[in-house]
Amino acid sequence: MTDTQLEQKADSMQDLLSDRRIHANTVAVNAMLQADPVLIDVTPALDALPGMTRHTILTSGAPLPWPAYEGGQRRAILGAALFEGLANSVEEADALLHAGDILVRPCHDYGCVGSLTGVTTASMPVLVVEDSMSGSRGHCVLYEGSARERLTYGVWNEAVHQQLTWIKDVLGPALSAALRHNGGLHTSPIIRRALGMGDDLHSRNTAATAVFFEQICESVLEANGFTAATRDVLNFLSRNDLFFLHVAMATGKSVATTASDTPHSSIVTAMALSGKEFAIRTAGTGQRWFRAPIPALQAKYFDGITAEDTAYMGGESLITETVGLGGLSAAAAFSLQDYSGGSAQNMVETTEAMYGITHTEHPQWKIPYLGFRGVPFGIDAARVVSSAITPRIHMGAALREGGHAGAGLLIAPIEPFREAIAALTVSAA
Amino acid sequence: MTDTQLEQKADSMQDLLSDRRIHANTVAVNAMLQADPVLIDVTPALDALPGMTRHTILTSGAPLPWPAYEGGQRRAILGAALFEGLANSVEEADALLHAGDILVRPCHDYGCVGSLTGVTTASMPVLVVEDSMSGSRGHCVLYEGSARERLTYGVWNEAVHQQLTWIKDVLGPALSAALRHNGGLHTSPIIRRALGMGDDLHSRNTAATAVFFEQICESVLEANGFTAATRDVLNFLSRNDLFFLHVAMATGKSVATTASDTPHSSIVTAMALSGKEFAIRTAGTGQRWFRAPIPALQAKYFDGITAEDTAYMGGESLITETVGLGGLSAAAAFSLQDYSGGSAQNMVETTEAMYGITHTEHPQWKIPYLGFRGVPFGIDAARVVSSAITPRIHMGAALREGGHAGAGLLIAPIEPFREAIAALTVSAA
Repeated sequence: MTDTQLEQKADSMQDLLSDRRIHANTVAVNAMLQADPVLIDVTPALDALPGMTRHTILTSGAPLPWPAYEGGQRRAILGAALFEGLANSVEEADALLHAGDILVRPCHDYGCVGSLTGVTTASMPVLVVEDSMSGSRGHCVLYEGSARERLTYGVWNEAVHQQLTWIKDVLGPALSAALRHNGGLHTSPIIRRALGMGDDLHSRNTAATAVFFEQICESVLEANGFTAATRDVLNFLSRNDLFFLHVAMATGKSVATTASDTPHSSIVTAMALSGKEFAIRTAGTGQRWFRAPIPALQAKYFDGITAEDTAYMGGESLITETVGLGGLSAAAAFSLQDYSGGSAQNMVETTEAMYGITHTEHPQWKIPYLGFRGVPFGIDAARVVSSAITPRIHMGAALREGGHAGAGLLIAPIEPFREAIAALTVSAA
Repeated sequence: MTDTQLEQKADSMQDLLSDRRIHANTVAVNAMLQADPVLIDVTPALDALPGMTRHTILTSGAPLPWPAYEGGQRRAILGAALFEGLANSVEEADALLHAGDILVRPCHDYGCVGSLTGVTTASMPVLVVEDSMSGSRGHCVLYEGSARERLTYGVWNEAVHQQLTWIKDVLGPALSAALRHNGGLHTSPIIRRALGMGDDLHSRNTAATAVFFEQICESVLEANGFTAATRDVLNFLSRNDLFFLHVAMATGKSVATTASDTPHSSIVTAMALSGKEFAIRTAGTGQRWFRAPIPALQAKYFDGITAEDTAYMGGESLITETVGLGGLSAAAAFSLQDYSGGSAQNMVETTEAMYGITHTEHPQWKIPYLGFRGVPFGIDAARVVSSAITPRIHMGAALREGGHAGAGLLIAPIEPFREAIAALTVSAA
């Protein structure tokens, strides 16, 4: 063959790959769009998560060997071992983790997603969201409350222990009873309404939580009676504006999973942070993680806090961006302008840029400011690579020692997307 | 004096009047800004409204003689007489109204505001909102529900009768008990939050209602127990997105009243519609109404409905615009873009125009899209006249025979503002 013939052959091969990928992406995205996620129950992780054991601790991000976990994420895993009664001291827990007698596993491998440290143990209640079309499920522990010291933020102490015990013994069972009473709550319509009420469903869930409360209040009462415990449950639900975040995350996991294992598809099915790495999965590359170091957060910190006071400790709430929410829906949530460069105009530009890297627009989830245009939906790694525009992610910054430090925009690194496309091309060739 | 001297004297007189007016306006607006409105109770109008009698029926707008009331407003007044047991038939009610044995009076003269027809009778429970700073009160009947046939929309039948009876016997007393239990709810912070969640507090109260429900749910339960009646009350509150509109209206009346009777002030303290006229009051002109025929609504009707199917039947929900909400806050509520010309950009322009006719910006009620700029606050009739820009009002269109016909923008006529300024100038000279 001549050079020209070779080039033509390469071009036509490229076109073929591209056509095949676009078709696969349509299949993957259609599966996600057809999902009808329903919050059906709240049950202990051991019962809910296939493969879960009493000696397994799930945490955020692509997996690392135990010694590589540091800072808040390490403290949270050790605290989780104590909470679960797997060890009597931090030292004992550390030894068991080194020996592999306590296993640390990534949430995503168990159909689960975690907030920040993301630690999830056997007895912790998880939200169970099931897509009624495909049966695909997503799970997430319950929101821990707004106290500065939380296991979520890498803090373990007696107050954290008590709160987690209340969640396990009171909140989880009460919500389970309510959801069994009402047959479950469809979460997509709540997300639709909340997008019209200033939520991005990642950093802001104020409206979604209020709508959720309106919808579940009666069932909580019917199923549990109006007792002192019910009073505490209703108070918790009505006073924690971020409660719905974890419902949105479980919803996101349930929806994204419908696209998993679609051969040749470059649609992103997971984005996750450990304390050290940003990693993605795509529909066409199965369980494989494509990783890169986490870039600095472009953050606006609360008064008196500097970047040095903060640390990454993991996080999988960016499953919301994976399904078109969070930073992708910035233009729906102008109250979050500190997260996105400080102005409404920046937020509009953020969302507009995201239309360039997504496969389609969601037909129900819409942004009022953009004339009710659907949110950018289905991040396509191929478009990320060709445009060199990466997902914009709304992130809260965490204090090194626990607590909320400020608001920021995480601009995903491009390397994992490039590697995913390379892997797809090799497997396709 | 020469012509020049005369002109100079006139100019300096004008400056003096202008200075005095601006000072008076600052006094009037500061009174409104200092208000801390609290929903303290829900009680029968007879108990709540000074001067109210069993034979008085309040209705929306500057007063008209009984024969001048037509259409829905007339039907609602007749229905109200039957509801109150003042007559046994429509014919008897009509005769008593002609004879003056049943009195028709404007809501505003009784510290009250009405939605559409605005009919309010002695036994109907009204929301009592009190400014804790000045003691100034505003009142409004409870939202009647979302059924198409309502007394609010000029419909009287057995279903309307039953619903009003439930409101009087169940909903009102339950809310009264809840508010006495919790000591009242501060409404300004709810409005602040709702503006950050896509409400304009006139045509959209979805977020405010959800936040109100979060805040009052526990007290409803504590004060009333979890009974079948409580179940109905919680259902009503959680499923009627416009419930808070009437709370916002009573709040607006309570706030606007703090500015009443400020000599020389051209700040608007009321805007009201009868079925025939648009009318205003200003702080410097007391109880006097300045009137003009209502212009056509610039409306987008639901499918199959035309302007001929609709009719004005009164309305005082524009008390929300009087305190900077509704059309003045259009840029907070992009979900309402059908109300305001069909695009978010038009809504931004609507609010921006309103800054040109208002005295200041509210320090707590803010619009996220405009970089958290305060809502345009304190409509100044003098600025309306000098700019020839009149208030933009978000209005639902009503079907002639009852029900919701569509969404529109009412552009207030300028004549009442001109007449108010003329009256202020005469009284000042």
